Amino acid sequence: MLDTALLSPRRHYLLALSGGRDSVCLLHLLLQQGYRNVHLVHLNHQLRGQDSEADAKFVSDLARELDLPLTLEKADISRLAKEEKKSLESSARSARHQLFVKAARTTGCSRVLLAHHADDQAETCLFNLLRGSAGLKGMEPQHEFQIDRKKLTFLRPLLQTRRAQIDQFISSNNLSYREDGSNTDLAFARNRIRHQALPLLSQILARDVVPPLTRALATNRANEEIISNLLEVLQLRDPQGRLFLPKLRDLPPALQRACLRNYLHEHQIPQISQALLDRALLLISPEGPPALNLPSNSFLRRKNGRLFVD
Amino acid sequence: MLDTALLSPRRHYLLALSGGRDSVCLLHLLLQQGYRNVHLVHLNHQLRGQDSEADAKFVSDLARELDLPLTLEKADISRLAKEEKKSLESSARSARHQLFVKAARTTGCSRVLLAHHADDQAETCLFNLLRGSAGLKGMEPQHEFQIDRKKLTFLRPLLQTRRAQIDQFISSNNLSYREDGSNTDLAFARNRIRHQALPLLSQILARDVVPPLTRALATNRANEEIISNLLEVLQLRDPQGRLFLPKLRDLPPALQRACLRNYLHEHQIPQISQALLDRALLLISPEGPPALNLPSNSFLRRKNGRLFVD
Repeated sequence: MLDTALLSPRRHYLLALSGGRDSVCLLHLLLQQGYRNVHLVHLNHQLRGQDSEADAKFVSDLARELDLPLTLEKADISRLAKEEKKSLESSARSARHQLFVKAARTTGCSRVLLAHHADDQAETCLFNLLRGSAGLKGMEPQHEFQIDRKKLTFLRPLLQTRRAQIDQFISSNNLSYREDGSNTDLAFARNRIRHQALPLLSQILARDVVPPLTRALATNRANEEIISNLLEVLQLRDPQGRLFLPKLRDLPPALQRACLRNYLHEHQIPQISQALLDRALLLISPEGPPALNLPSNSFLRRKNGRLFVD
Repeated sequence: MLDTALLSPRRHYLLALSGGRDSVCLLHLLLQQGYRNVHLVHLNHQLRGQDSEADAKFVSDLARELDLPLTLEKADISRLAKEEKKSLESSARSARHQLFVKAARTTGCSRVLLAHHADDQAETCLFNLLRGSAGLKGMEPQHEFQIDRKKLTFLRPLLQTRRAQIDQFISSNNLSYREDGSNTDLAFARNRIRHQALPLLSQILARDVVPPLTRALATNRANEEIISNLLEVLQLRDPQGRLFLPKLRDLPPALQRACLRNYLHEHQIPQISQALLDRALLLISPEGPPALNLPSNSFLRRKNGRLFVD
């Protein structure tokens, strides 16, 4: 069940433990396979009153029982979301990220294990596909993320495991866990995709739709990888890493578009929509506008035959 | 509304006219824009008794009224499907294709206009994505298809037009049409995607999900085009068009996979699943099996450093 290609028992890991079925399963799988250097991290989101307290108590009891170190904190997510004018989901995620950074700084360990599985992945795939500009985009088994100048590596060793396998493991090992109440509260649209849309689609197609979705993600990732490699081979950057326009202008439009998408993505520009790419493409021509406003308070500029984020 | 980049009023066209809203709209749009060389084709599927007869009568009245030539035939689709042990949908499609071929032979015109629109495209996208191996695959605005040794070109000039625009055109021009009863009968899963899944998903995401789906198709098509062009530039074929293994072996696995997928697709191998590609990839190595059974009673073979369909 565990994607051990990602992991080594000799390494140290932070494990995000909500107390729900998936993270409890991940923890016990690791312990069964001899992983001992696991530091647990739990954030009490305080969104469901007594239930949130009970989750936190469950996690700290479990840590004591298993004799594992635990970083446990509280955050008033509902107040934070109001102050930051963000969604509950988005505030909760940044609060968790900040706690991971804190735990990483105190433990010296920056690898964070997350318990997302294949059914979560299918749900993410459908959600991203339908909500806008992302196309076919799922969660990565491994990805690096810079938060508060600290680089964290997120690892998802259950990403190819089905929810039913997790249920099976939980029940055959007779493990206790907390019902994932936070999921129900936080991500309304995603929960409806899980509980309404995916079952309806599986019923309509008369088949389990999770495997075709995860396979489509894999094919798409492979295609994007081919294109990234191709763009690298084409050497479209100058020594400062800026896009070199005389070369870029020679490419077919689809490849120019892919090149700009990759370049903006590397510069951590959020929400790279098709419309943004359309506007960015105009800058390639010497007759086009010389600059474009980007979503993150930065600019894409054309200057001296180069295109760069500024 | 009409994608005129695909069309020219000077050319002759066959138009598949079911009598439903979409094909009636397409016909009148063409006439309004000065297209006169339109030959109508209607197949009475005989699946809905009196309703099918009434569709055929509606179409022949319309042809007479507009003074346009019409090829109209009957086929007992339900009997054919039983005899051929195929689904109603699939037998109906081959019967229509055969009628197009017949009309193409009598008229000397091999361009067939189809009235599929953007909402159909989103439905096809979701259907293909969920039903198995196809990944993100929609209908093409233009594609060629060989049937009974006759090459037909199918054109879909409404593929970027929304169903609501068609409704609007029909009502503002006060056009009569027949309700698309055949759709309801023929394609149960597709109809449930249209009438249940897409509305549910739009409601969950609180947005119209058709544009993100058609955009994702366009991005995917652009990526596949880049990869096809790349494979061509890499010159992986020998003068006989067979795959040249010494070159293929040097490529990264994702590109080998894409190369095999394109090659099998070109040889009209149906149902190129991920599992089939996995088995085909084994042939690349000199230690792998020398031949693979393909779905269409043919083989993929390795011989003298070449890989080819036989």
